[in-house]
Amino acid sequence: MTGTDKSIDAQDTGGPAVILVNPQMGENIGAAARAMLNCGLQELRLVNPRDGWPSPQAEAMSSGALERMPPVQLFDSTAASIADCHYVYATTARPRDMVKPVFTARSAAADMHKRIQDRQKVAVLFGAERTGLENDDVAQSHAVVTIPLNPGFSSLNLGQGVLLMAYEWYQLQVDTPDRHTPMGGTEPASHDLLQELFERLETELDAHHFFRNEGQRPIMIRNLHTLLTRAEMTAQEVRTFHGIISALIGKKAPLEK
Amino acid sequence: MTGTDKSIDAQDTGGPAVILVNPQMGENIGAAARAMLNCGLQELRLVNPRDGWPSPQAEAMSSGALERMPPVQLFDSTAASIADCHYVYATTARPRDMVKPVFTARSAAADMHKRIQDRQKVAVLFGAERTGLENDDVAQSHAVVTIPLNPGFSSLNLGQGVLLMAYEWYQLQVDTPDRHTPMGGTEPASHDLLQELFERLETELDAHHFFRNEGQRPIMIRNLHTLLTRAEMTAQEVRTFHGIISALIGKKAPLEK
Repeated sequence: MTGTDKSIDAQDTGGPAVILVNPQMGENIGAAARAMLNCGLQELRLVNPRDGWPSPQAEAMSSGALERMPPVQLFDSTAASIADCHYVYATTARPRDMVKPVFTARSAAADMHKRIQDRQKVAVLFGAERTGLENDDVAQSHAVVTIPLNPGFSSLNLGQGVLLMAYEWYQLQVDTPDRHTPMGGTEPASHDLLQELFERLETELDAHHFFRNEGQRPIMIRNLHTLLTRAEMTAQEVRTFHGIISALIGKKAPLEK
Repeated sequence: MTGTDKSIDAQDTGGPAVILVNPQMGENIGAAARAMLNCGLQELRLVNPRDGWPSPQAEAMSSGALERMPPVQLFDSTAASIADCHYVYATTARPRDMVKPVFTARSAAADMHKRIQDRQKVAVLFGAERTGLENDDVAQSHAVVTIPLNPGFSSLNLGQGVLLMAYEWYQLQVDTPDRHTPMGGTEPASHDLLQELFERLETELDAHHFFRNEGQRPIMIRNLHTLLTRAEMTAQEVRTFHGIISALIGKKAPLEK
């Protein structure tokens, strides 16, 4: 899915720090960075990456994200990585035997949003690829995030886990309408344009003996109105429809421009 | 992130078909399959996969998802792949010059959910890795889905695009509480247990001359109550706290079991 506008600076939404604890493969760190920048997160911290840092594999998999983000911060313990944080979320796929709040990704994002508005520094921890976070890391966190997924097939790779958490964060930062219809160079047809079309269509259908059963006529007319109203035609489409009627009856269209 | 419970069948939520149009790399098809099964989607259709089908690369990247899903369906045109569908969503990252509804991933999932409840067959189209869907594919679709992402860095890979759409679908299928606190083998402390703890703490603090300023005493007591109430202690933690007081004052704890 292409679509990056390279003329725009990559947005920084001032969201949580993402902390990868003991990540193994550079590729996964790169995928995590890419997912972060996709969602306006720019603060990546690493605790003891197995294969060292910097990582050419991470650079390659980040599709340019790492170059555009501030430098990754390195730490030698989870405690050091969260030293400046006020609230820390530990992502885990399996339940841990600890009495602490468990959020979904969505509710965690909402919780982070409120805390960041209150000027808290927040971070999200992700564990190593195969094993996830150690219990000691979870114990140091204030809350757990478990993403609701198919219980019979819930294993996500690291980049995907980061993507879902970052995505939920980003959805709170943007105000995209749930549904809109871009009109391009045209505008929705006004009622009078549609009415004119209906009347012309009806006249031509009468002239061409479309309504064979006079008793059915009002219902058929109503159904045609319903169809053409449901289509939410543009003014241009109404003009095109006039042209179609003209073409079919063998006339030059009266409204064509 | 590990956590798959292999004793559970992978859930099929009866959601939309996912159609990959002209996918290039088998690896991406596998990643898409994995993301689908993570989110309870099991119907994968391919239109002219460049490197043929079946694909060992896809099998490997799917982490077992392809083995657990019904066989992938192959088509030689987008039109053939959507022939049985009533409503089709085209995912695109960039705006197209077509007057049709544009949904977010979240609102598209809600729309799909309603249509599927009305027994419509729905599908989501994803285009080739580099180029996305052709305009002709978008024109055949009823609606467009554009996932809100960082406009300065919105490029997702195919598996990630499928994951976000599938994730939004799945969130409507589950009823996970926004926040819950699993209690393990214990239960929240009742008010009388807490009251007993407060009173004992206050008595011992008095005995040990903690409150040097009698005027500050009520405020300090109130602050301690506030702290210990905010912690939402479990019954076990109250017992542990009694043990701590006993240990610090050099006594065996009266409430220890």
